[in-house]
Amino acid sequence: MIVILKQNSPQKKVSELIDKFHSMGVSTNVNLGHYDTVIALIGDTSKVDMDSILANEIVDTVKRVSEPYKAANRKFHSEDTIVEVGNAKIGEGYFNVIAGPCSVESEEQIIEVAEAVKKSGATLLRGGAFKPRTSPYSFQGLHGEGIRLLLEAKKATGLPIVTEIMGIEHIDLFADVDVIQVGARNMQNFQLLKELGKSDKPILLKRGLANTIEEFLMSAEYIMASGNNNVILCERGIRTFETIVRNTLDITAVPLLKKLSHLPIIIDPSHASGVAWLVEPLSKTAVAAGADGLIIEVHNNPECALCDGDQSLTPANFDKLMTNLKKRAEFEGKKM
Amino acid sequence: MIVILKQNSPQKKVSELIDKFHSMGVSTNVNLGHYDTVIALIGDTSKVDMDSILANEIVDTVKRVSEPYKAANRKFHSEDTIVEVGNAKIGEGYFNVIAGPCSVESEEQIIEVAEAVKKSGATLLRGGAFKPRTSPYSFQGLHGEGIRLLLEAKKATGLPIVTEIMGIEHIDLFADVDVIQVGARNMQNFQLLKELGKSDKPILLKRGLANTIEEFLMSAEYIMASGNNNVILCERGIRTFETIVRNTLDITAVPLLKKLSHLPIIIDPSHASGVAWLVEPLSKTAVAAGADGLIIEVHNNPECALCDGDQSLTPANFDKLMTNLKKRAEFEGKKM
Amino acid sequence: MIVILKQNSPQKKVSELIDKFHSMGVSTNVNLGHYDTVIALIGDTSKVDMDSILANEIVDTVKRVSEPYKAANRKFHSEDTIVEVGNAKIGEGYFNVIAGPCSVESEEQIIEVAEAVKKSGATLLRGGAFKPRTSPYSFQGLHGEGIRLLLEAKKATGLPIVTEIMGIEHIDLFADVDVIQVGARNMQNFQLLKELGKSDKPILLKRGLANTIEEFLMSAEYIMASGNNNVILCERGIRTFETIVRNTLDITAVPLLKKLSHLPIIIDPSHASGVAWLVEPLSKTAVAAGADGLIIEVHNNPECALCDGDQSLTPANFDKLMTNLKKRAEFEGKKM
Amino acid sequence: MIVILKQNSPQKKVSELIDKFHSMGVSTNVNLGHYDTVIALIGDTSKVDMDSILANEIVDTVKRVSEPYKAANRKFHSEDTIVEVGNAKIGEGYFNVIAGPCSVESEEQIIEVAEAVKKSGATLLRGGAFKPRTSPYSFQGLHGEGIRLLLEAKKATGLPIVTEIMGIEHIDLFADVDVIQVGARNMQNFQLLKELGKSDKPILLKRGLANTIEEFLMSAEYIMASGNNNVILCERGIRTFETIVRNTLDITAVPLLKKLSHLPIIIDPSHASGVAWLVEPLSKTAVAAGADGLIIEVHNNPECALCDGDQSLTPANFDKLMTNLKKRAEFEGKKM
Repeated sequence: MIVILKQNSPQKKVSELIDKFHSMGVSTNVNLGHYDTVIALIGDTSKVDMDSILANEIVDTVKRVSEPYKAANRKFHSEDTIVEVGNAKIGEGYFNVIAGPCSVESEEQIIEVAEAVKKSGATLLRGGAFKPRTSPYSFQGLHGEGIRLLLEAKKATGLPIVTEIMGIEHIDLFADVDVIQVGARNMQNFQLLKELGKSDKPILLKRGLANTIEEFLMSAEYIMASGNNNVILCERGIRTFETIVRNTLDITAVPLLKKLSHLPIIIDPSHASGVAWLVEPLSKTAVAAGADGLIIEVHNNPECALCDGDQSLTPANFDKLMTNLKKRAEFEGKKM
Repeated sequence: MIVILKQNSPQKKVSELIDKFHSMGVSTNVNLGHYDTVIALIGDTSKVDMDSILANEIVDTVKRVSEPYKAANRKFHSEDTIVEVGNAKIGEGYFNVIAGPCSVESEEQIIEVAEAVKKSGATLLRGGAFKPRTSPYSFQGLHGEGIRLLLEAKKATGLPIVTEIMGIEHIDLFADVDVIQVGARNMQNFQLLKELGKSDKPILLKRGLANTIEEFLMSAEYIMASGNNNVILCERGIRTFETIVRNTLDITAVPLLKKLSHLPIIIDPSHASGVAWLVEPLSKTAVAAGADGLIIEVHNNPECALCDGDQSLTPANFDKLMTNLKKRAEFEGKKM
Repeated sequence: MIVILKQNSPQKKVSELIDKFHSMGVSTNVNLGHYDTVIALIGDTSKVDMDSILANEIVDTVKRVSEPYKAANRKFHSEDTIVEVGNAKIGEGYFNVIAGPCSVESEEQIIEVAEAVKKSGATLLRGGAFKPRTSPYSFQGLHGEGIRLLLEAKKATGLPIVTEIMGIEHIDLFADVDVIQVGARNMQNFQLLKELGKSDKPILLKRGLANTIEEFLMSAEYIMASGNNNVILCERGIRTFETIVRNTLDITAVPLLKKLSHLPIIIDPSHASGVAWLVEPLSKTAVAAGADGLIIEVHNNPECALCDGDQSLTPANFDKLMTNLKKRAEFEGKKM
Repeated sequence: MIVILKQNSPQKKVSELIDKFHSMGVSTNVNLGHYDTVIALIGDTSKVDMDSILANEIVDTVKRVSEPYKAANRKFHSEDTIVEVGNAKIGEGYFNVIAGPCSVESEEQIIEVAEAVKKSGATLLRGGAFKPRTSPYSFQGLHGEGIRLLLEAKKATGLPIVTEIMGIEHIDLFADVDVIQVGARNMQNFQLLKELGKSDKPILLKRGLANTIEEFLMSAEYIMASGNNNVILCERGIRTFETIVRNTLDITAVPLLKKLSHLPIIIDPSHASGVAWLVEPLSKTAVAAGADGLIIEVHNNPECALCDGDQSLTPANFDKLMTNLKKRAEFEGKKM
């Protein structure tokens, strides 16, 4: 950590600050410049709070040198993490596609979609039971009944299920769910992250709309710090000035996260674009970027979907896409 | 609502779509352009789901004409809402300053700060008991004990208290809290919003880091749709490309929200800037923009604060600021 | 074009507005809703100025239905444009890599790099003679001498050359340049665009840091409206809230531009990321997304480069990348 | 400047790098941490190129400690700069309002508006002769004739004139213009900035749509480094994710620029919001924030304006606004 002092700080104050650092168990190296004094803190600075240093009247700026996350950091865990869900292995060397409707709507719907996506090669089934919607007047999901229907679809197809949790108060309903999803709007719902850290279930953590890569990894760190290392990261588009598509897919996040962390990273091309025709090209870029998989919305009747119909593929289009993706995964030397 | 069809859509599909609109209870007006066909939907379109229309294969784009919020909309509620908390009236015509430390740290600290800010003219006391922190390794607040200490400070000073809730599971702890704050990261925690809507306590709703004005009002709508009209909006800076300050204060939000909604709107200059010296100029702009108040971080010893010390004012600086703000509120014809 | 009127607009004003539209040669279709009146303008609205309509006191909002660009629009020109430069064909079906140093520094340097990149399969040579630098104290390029050296490198290798123009006043110096580049900061330097439109030289137009896809195509339209159809679009990263890399590559721009326009689109992974190690993964995603090529910075001695050394590949790394990209272009069925 | 090395960098490479720094005339202070090695560069680092350091294979990150601008930096020039134009003094302690139409359209129009705004208290007249428009099909201004008409208006009213330049090639036409404006899209047109630096005319420099405060000051530095210190900064709204208004006014820029620089800073509320009714509240916030003035669009017939009619005030509304602003300037202790 680097601490830059204000110009002409009184020597007495500087000495007091240095003593304070020593009392925190870090050593210091002081550099007197012509205009600025720079103090380098040496040792384990992970317990040093940048904010409280900045509050000191003689401090101008504080800059971190090392990442504030540890459990999720590849520097301290060089091997790739593989998250196992049923027979699926999610992580480096594999390419898994999670597919299913935005919302679970009926037993018939979810089983029909589950059978279709399984046949095309999906290894996990997604479906929303609790739906975060911008408007209180929009369809909010079937809740407990939705989870029950997902479990029926699992029974029928053998596919493990992935579904989103919106609050700690529902956690008992998720007892038989295979992968619990934390949505983009809850990426910094720290109470929820801590609670999920106490479980050993795989967690699919979506990046927030306007959260940095570092904040994303800090949220994974919340889950891991509580003891759960089964975290799957998911980039699903960020919010920028561009309005022609719903979000801007940050494809660079894939190689960056692979370098900074050992956790698996998948892409959600359906939410990243918000329109069905872009799912195919964005899925192709995800494979090329080195992602470990995809999560794709598929609906047996997109025009009648209760939610996100415009970004859902039909089972036929999904099948065509999967045929194409298999060749690409093979090209990259990945098992799919 | 305006629906624009793709070029050369087959007449049969167009007719089917129009029948579908009629079955939803809205009437239509069809405009055949040279390149495009445009359908205007007339009537109450609040139940019409834009997504499901977009999913129709012949639809190119859908544009809303009227706002998707009702309870929060000034069009349907022209009178300004005044939220009453103890003796304080928050809303048009008044100017209230809520002040206190980022975190409650000890009985001595919170009572000392409470007495100081009261003396300077603050009408409510703020203090965090549950703290949303980016890092799991940072101080997370005193939780229940923090609320107990706030209530002690209320007993000592008479100031109503404002404190942040981070999950439904803590709601019982907030029984005696006067104003419940929903933080920026929870602005779209819809479960929490719905639950708070069942209460009649005033809710201080902070705008999310990257949420639009419309999404902000839709979150207020969640609370109001569940029956609670006591919502105070709070602009606290948005996330942009600029990195020189923590956030970018969107001062235009004040006149915009005043026009679109009847709810009170206050400004948080401490979080908007992240540095103490900017609190004064930003507070002045808030008064001039027509805001109904401010929420300001004040700490009796910023350098030792467990959180956000760098953006906290000392009681002495706060007092100086309040003296200045009183003249400004008077200039604007507001009671402070 | 859709015009939405304010609530309770006086009938007389509405009639005057409709007459005004008719006088502009467009017909109208008026839809009276319960709360809003909506007027659809039918016919050629490309001459209708949205701003002046918005200025009318009874108008609430104006929304475009059709794109404001014509020459660049695929709707009116369904065939892909192939820009020919020497033997290179840039556009759908081909994959061209433009490579070279950020800045031309010496005859030895530019010829050495040119020979290396040619050997690896690059089809055009890039090199900056005029350098837009944020700081007036940074190296600004060799100017005319830089162009002379590029022409020497062309003579030595046969590679056509691409170099950036920063102002109309230099245009004579570019007489023998094969492709004139307009940099991101000049994307809306309309004087320059108009002037380049009078030429028939291929123009490589880079997207501005914070310009939308529509604005990007409008800038292409400026060049084309003046008579020059040889425009190559280049996505080079946009500015977002994320700070871990210099820019955020908007990979979705590739399929979007392919759909909206017939112009070729290439990717600049060097500027999009700002670091050399990300050039490889981003180049792979560009191929998969359907881009028509790449522009990559290569320097024979990155550590001593006068500009952008940190994002430049060595000739050896570039060669390795090209070997990989050739397999990928072949996989996509493209000639490289 | 702080240089952080990669983990486990070979000692030999570290020594070479340190020698390189010494050869640049800066001294170093090396800090060996457990995981990282940090080198502080001491002395005048303004000539050290961050990019070329980053290109070194053992360097992980480079961070600037001191600002890269000098002439515009308050640290080296503590006194406020006052730019004099005719009788107007622009800078700390004064409040000037520049007003006029977006475009000069006719002699009658410009003289009518000039007389009106002068009567209301404007001290300079603005009017566009060269208009940067997103579309090549929109009105582009009257060019030389527009400047001639502005000079007629100056003759009639005595008001100095401000008008935008779009390229060096027009500079002779601006010989009698009092203040030359550089528009937001040209903020990083470095050729133009350098050329204007050779003049001694006051330059009104608008901040780019997506440029940081530091880049803004670096562009001022371009003008000043060429010898012209008469620079007036203008914040006119930045581009964010919010779409409800054209731009987001960054009001915090005012106190920040006042602290970082000695140059005058004014606000353009017309472009910041894009709608006339917001000009009044935003103008009030500008006064409160400490701005040195405003530039406001006024048109005698907004509905017929050839450009930006929707954001123009009528002379009557402008007069009302000025009456209000005078009281506010007086409240702030400024001469208006």
